Parts: sequence; structure tokens; C-alpha cells
Amino acid sequence: MIVGGGFGGLAAAHALAKAEAEVALFDRHNHHLFQPLLYQVATAALSPGNIAAPIRKILSRQKNCDVIMAEVTDVDVDARTVTVIDQPYAYDYLILAAGACTEYFGNDRWSAAAPGLKTISEAIDVRCRFLLAFEQAEIETDEAARRAALTFAIVGAGPTGVEMAGAMAEISRQTLRADFRHLDTSTVRIMLIDAADRVLPTFAPQLSQRAGRDLESLGVELLLGTTVVDVDDAGLAIEGAEGRRRIDAAQVIWAAGVRGVPLGEQLGGEIDRGGRVIVSDDLSIPGHPEVFVVGDLARRVDPLSKKPVPGVAQGAIQMGRFAGRTVAVEISARQRGKPPPERRVFVYRDRGSMATIGRNKAIAEVRGLRFGGFPAFLAWALIHILFLIGFRNRLIVMTEWIWMFLTFGRGVRLITGEDRVPRPVRPPPDPRLVGRERIPPATLPSRRR
Amino acid sequence: MIVGGGFGGLAAAHALAKAEAEVALFDRHNHHLFQPLLYQVATAALSPGNIAAPIRKILSRQKNCDVIMAEVTDVDVDARTVTVIDQPYAYDYLILAAGACTEYFGNDRWSAAAPGLKTISEAIDVRCRFLLAFEQAEIETDEAARRAALTFAIVGAGPTGVEMAGAMAEISRQTLRADFRHLDTSTVRIMLIDAADRVLPTFAPQLSQRAGRDLESLGVELLLGTTVVDVDDAGLAIEGAEGRRRIDAAQVIWAAGVRGVPLGEQLGGEIDRGGRVIVSDDLSIPGHPEVFVVGDLARRVDPLSKKPVPGVAQGAIQMGRFAGRTVAVEISARQRGKPPPERRVFVYRDRGSMATIGRNKAIAEVRGLRFGGFPAFLAWALIHILFLIGFRNRLIVMTEWIWMFLTFGRGVRLITGEDRVPRPVRPPPDPRLVGRERIPPATLPSRRR
Repeated sequence: MIVGGGFGGLAAAHALAKAEAEVALFDRHNHHLFQPLLYQVATAALSPGNIAAPIRKILSRQKNCDVIMAEVTDVDVDARTVTVIDQPYAYDYLILAAGACTEYFGNDRWSAAAPGLKTISEAIDVRCRFLLAFEQAEIETDEAARRAALTFAIVGAGPTGVEMAGAMAEISRQTLRADFRHLDTSTVRIMLIDAADRVLPTFAPQLSQRAGRDLESLGVELLLGTTVVDVDDAGLAIEGAEGRRRIDAAQVIWAAGVRGVPLGEQLGGEIDRGGRVIVSDDLSIPGHPEVFVVGDLARRVDPLSKKPVPGVAQGAIQMGRFAGRTVAVEISARQRGKPPPERRVFVYRDRGSMATIGRNKAIAEVRGLRFGGFPAFLAWALIHILFLIGFRNRLIVMTEWIWMFLTFGRGVRLITGEDRVPRPVRPPPDPRLVGRERIPPATLPSRRR
Repeated sequence: MIVGGGFGGLAAAHALAKAEAEVALFDRHNHHLFQPLLYQVATAALSPGNIAAPIRKILSRQKNCDVIMAEVTDVDVDARTVTVIDQPYAYDYLILAAGACTEYFGNDRWSAAAPGLKTISEAIDVRCRFLLAFEQAEIETDEAARRAALTFAIVGAGPTGVEMAGAMAEISRQTLRADFRHLDTSTVRIMLIDAADRVLPTFAPQLSQRAGRDLESLGVELLLGTTVVDVDDAGLAIEGAEGRRRIDAAQVIWAAGVRGVPLGEQLGGEIDRGGRVIVSDDLSIPGHPEVFVVGDLARRVDPLSKKPVPGVAQGAIQMGRFAGRTVAVEISARQRGKPPPERRVFVYRDRGSMATIGRNKAIAEVRGLRFGGFPAFLAWALIHILFLIGFRNRLIVMTEWIWMFLTFGRGVRLITGEDRVPRPVRPPPDPRLVGRERIPPATLPSRRR
């Protein structure tokens, strides 16, 4: 039984393709989501359909695998059952790849005002609120309100936060400039807030510095060594070197942290601060060799590098594949009446890491080799297209990116949902006055009254 | 002042491009939506971003035109003002292109259970409910509930209803067959219900018959001469030749009718049964030469053909352009101190009409020439790509269609929204039993207990 259709769960399922077993994969969504590109949905570059694929379509050729769209609510490792739709399901092997959720460090009430970026719904919500803020500012004549409508705060300067900030800055400065007549897009404020003293702290310091410079060159304000003390619908309060202050913002985006899903706590084993399950060398949990935890939900410190396996696609893929293969080997051994072989030790192979800040702006760290700029940007684009599932998605995303690169345009600037309309504090008195800054006063005849 | 960013409103704005006037276009959405292809969003073929474009982007080069995302709530033709955000805005000329909304013929309580297809939100909702029904049926072991989960009713056999029915049948029979292991997609029931005695009644009888045969060849049940007497979350009640009966259905889609938006009634002029404003020869309303109504909101009977201008893109475009040009001519005349010329009479040029039922199945009627099959299918595809706004959209849609044609696949099979999960009446007792029909019983060791 596999729980989760992310990179870890799919890798495990693929590894079991030839096993004479009944594989059941549970996910509460019907689609696998390529989360590394979710920020591009949130910033109107891609459609959800470009970065997601139905799990059962991905596995449709794997006849031994059943895909069930349902949420696993409980795990009982002693009874060897999971609970789905209030009903126990038995397993012989369990591979838990249920992933992580957004972490507000005890301030869950912030979640409504500061959405994270884990699901398509959240990305669409962020996109709509971001675009709506510009529509609001366009017809807002109250200066303070207009300023607030053009202020955006991103909390967390990890890859997601950096990529969001860079993309939002590019849209504001480039894509939207020609389309809005009555707001000066150079007044848009995009703040990237982090308690750390540099962006992308998991990268080498010089790459962090480069990324920081790239962000500032795009007009992003870096508020480092700064913590968020409160968030509400109208903005947030931060505390840094120059004390505590309040910022009115149209939108706060939470990219500050993730935490393993609660399911992990039900295994009865050890959990780290981030809600991740501490796994043994073979990725199983102590006392339960038949239960594996992989991906973002697993805490595995590499015996060689002494570093934890990072919460990235590569980590999940390698762990999922390892767990799937282990199960496949043991099943076939038993089926041939042989004792299962000694279990191997999982070793993470770091394929390198990269982050993109914007057009021609990216950083990469591959096997000690560190580089940035256009080469990193290109490498980033190619690798992300490569890891997209489905040729169609690759084709469309490539087309969208080439188009975006050539035109500076963003394809998916849609505000959906009937309730999303601008509500200015002080609307403009009359359309012909709205146009004053740019449009010459009309020479229409005086009204025929 | 132009109200509405659909085909009519945009055509009017374009016609005013060179006018020395201040043009303000109001729309409550930020995007122009290519409604003829909305059913393809509802049937997982296209993403919303492929058939919509931001209105201010479309008009960004037209410096004399202001785009304001806001709803016009009232019109006062005597004061010559419209109300936007509780505030009056004055106009010299008003072009009302606010379009139509779904019409339930006095049964508005049906709207929740039977959504129409006018907005992106509705299309996404239909898509999610349709796909979710299959997930539900996959794990439903209660036969009646499973049958209901695979029953879909489309009310209204006009172009939208026919295209929806055809597309839903194709997905069920072809696209989804390989992906669902535990349901027989040939048991899917797709019903097309209409009070008329033939589908596509606006077309020639022989084309209707051909379309009907095409639909039936795809497995669509035609319930003609049948009226809907009730709709609820669990299905609908219909009344036809063989009396009244109840159908349990996972989804009811309402394509039975549209009605002009309520704004039209505020003009004080004559309104037809469909809520459309009856306009004069010059598309203005009697007594108010400065107020034009175009598109789906206008009722214009052609003086030559004696037929009303159909509620299609071509009708809206031609009316919008006509109104825009009329205004442009009068403004420039006055600016040159000349009296405005006599107004012309609007004449609708029928460029032909077509409808697609499915792969290689379509009908077309162009200047008396009637044809169907692949030629009509190809013509339909080319014309729809041609009328899409933006080269990028054309490129992507063409790519998606070619892909779909070659693979029978549907690119956007996503169920979004956290609350959308299957809730079977009787879930399967155990995953290995779920797999019974297809997967051979495992030869796993007896559980180690």
C-alpha cells in the first residue's frame, strides 16, 4: 500500500511495476502535482493543467497498481491497517509518502490571510489576489489604500519564496506596465522577509549573495534578519534590527516552512521538530520493517554527508524508488521460497540544486560546481521540463516559456471566481477623470441636455 | 462608455480606436472569455487560460480606451449615467454589451444542482464534478449508487448541449476507459434532453438528423420531446411521451437557455421574453439615440431575412462594430463642426453556423451549403482557432487539439478544491478486493502475525 501520489509515491509504484503483488496507491487528489513549478501557476505563467497529471493516467499501464482517490485518515502499524473512508484496509507493506503541509509555527490563524503554496487551489488563490490588487490600485484614488494595494510580502527566502518574489517583481515591472494606465508599476513594493541573514541559506554564501543582488536588481526589498510577528487581511507586522513595524499589504504569501503531515505522528515512532518521521537506514521505521516512510514526510540524515536528505523532488524520488525496490525484492524472494536478503542502506545522491530568480537570473550548485546567470537559468529550465510528467505537458510548458521569454508576457492572467471584484476605498469620481493622467481631455460636444 | 468585454464590447472598442474620444470599457471580469470553447474547459480538453485573455491586455495599445474591472449595477438613460461601485458615471454615448446569463425559466432554485456554462468558474465546477463522478464510481460497491454516479444529464440540445454531450461521451468511452479498472465505461449514460423534436433546431432538419445520428453513435441517449420538471442534487425528473419519470444522476448540466442580463430592463424600453432589449434599425433604443445595445442582450430582427440576429459571436461582433463606428462617425462630424450623418440600418451578414459533436463529427451550414463529417470538423476547428484572441492562445489550443486528436487524451483532467473527494455509499471492503475483477489474487506470504 502506497499513500501519496507525489514524487515519492509514484517512484515507489514504478519500482513495484514487475512485482507479483497488488499495489494500491491512495491520494486525496486525482492528480500528481509538479510542485517545483507551482509558483509559476501562482504568478500567471502556467495553467494548473500544465504541471499536473492524473495519477491513474500516469499508472494506467501498470496493471498491478490500483489508484484510489481517497484520504488515508489513520494508520495502525500494529494492526497493519490504514483507515480510508472510515474503514480499515489491511496491508502487508506500507510505503508512506504523504508529504508535508505548510507550517505556521503555531500561528495557524495566519493561514487564511497568508496562504502557502502546496496545492493548485492555493496557487490559483494567490494568482487571483495578486492580479486583483492591481485592478484595485488602478481605480483607487485614496493614496494610502493604493499604496497598500501595490504592496506584497513574501515570508520565507527559500527557493519558493525567492522564485515567487522574483516572478512577482518581473510581472509588476514588465508584463503589467503597459496594461495599467493609472498606476505607476515602479511604485509596486515586493518584500521578501526571512529571519535568516541571507536568501537561499541552503546554498553556498556566494550564491546567496548573487541571488540577493539579482532580486534587488528586480526591485525586490530584502528584509533579512526579520521575523513576522503578526498577519491579518490588511497586512503584517514584522520585527527586525530597526524594531517592530506594521506594513499594510494587499497580500502576504507564506513560504516560510513546511511540516510533515499529521499522519506521521500516528506511526508511534520518533518525530523531529518539523513533524518528519525519523527513519532507519532502510527507510523503514524502528520495529516495523514493513512500514517505509519516504519523501518530505521522512527525516533521514545521510550517513556520509551527515546532512539530512533535502525536501526536494530528487530526495523523494530516490527514497520512493529505494523503498519500492526493497519491497519488490522481498516479495519475489518469498515467492521463490527464499529468505528475504539483508536490507541495504539508503544513500542519497545529491544531483545538485538550483533556483531561478527571473529571466536569465538563476543560481546552480552541481557537484561542487557553482554558477549563475543565463547558464543556470537555461539548466534550470531544461531540468524542470525534463522532470515534468507527460510529453504533452513538456511541450506546452516549453512553448509557454519560449513565448514568455520572447514577449515578457504572462499567459494566464485570469481572475476567476464571481466574488472577486475590486472594492476601492475611494473610487474615481468619473471615468473621464480616471483617464486624466494619460488621456487628453475629450473635445466632445457639451452634453445635449 | 462600453459595458461588457465580450465580443460585442471589444468590437465596439476597436471601432472607436481612432476616435478622438475617451472610451471607458467596464467588465466585472478582468478577462475576455471565448465562450464557444468553454465546453472544452468543462470537458478537460483545454485550460481556462487557453480561451481567455485579459481585456486590458487586448486593448493595451488602444490609448483612448480605459479598461475598468467593475460591475455596472444601474443605468439611468435620462440622467445619462451608469452606476459603478455605488457611484454615478456620466456618458455621452453608451454601448451596452453586457450579454446574457443562464435562464432556468422560473426555476432558479435548480441553478445550484444544474450549473450553466457561462463562466470559467462554472466550467471548472462542471469538469470537477464530472471527473469526480468516475472516481466515485470506481470505489462504489453499491450498484444503484454506482449506476447513478455514471449517469449524466444535459438539458438543452442547442450547440452547447450537443457539444457537451458529444465530448462527455468521448471522454467516457475513450479517454477514461484504460484508466479505471473497476468500472465498465460502456455503462456510462449520457442523456441529452430537449423539449424540441430534434437536436440543433436552428439548423436544417437533415443536419439535425445527422448530428443526432452522430450523437447516438457516440452512445448519447437522446430524450427529445421531453421536458425537465424537477432538478435536485441527486438527479432530475423528466416528462415525455412515456410519461413522467425520475433519473438519478451524478450531474445535471443546464444548456437549455439564456436570458439577457437584468441591466437591460433598466433602459425602460421594450424587452422580449428572453430579457433581450428590442433595438431600432441603428441598434439604439427608441428615444435614446446615444444608447446602443449589442450582442446577446439585444433583440434585433433582420429586415431582410426577418430572422433575429442569432446569439453567436458573429452577431455580437457585427453589432458591436456597427455601434462603435456609428459613434465614431458622429463624434468626428461634430468635432469638424458638421451635423452628424443620417444613421445607417444594421444588416446582419450570416457567415454560416457550425457545431461539432466529436472527433470527425460536425455539421456546418455556410451560405446554403450544408456539409458534415471531417470537412465540417476541420472547418470548425480552423475557424475557432482563428477567432481566438492572441497568437499564444491559438498556438497552444492548436497544439492541444492535435495532441488530443492523435492520442484521444484530454490534457486537463484535474479535480481541484480540497473538499472534492469521493464519498461512496458503500466503499469497497479492502483494496485487494477492489482489484478483484482485474488483478490476480496476490501470492504474498500470509501476514506475519
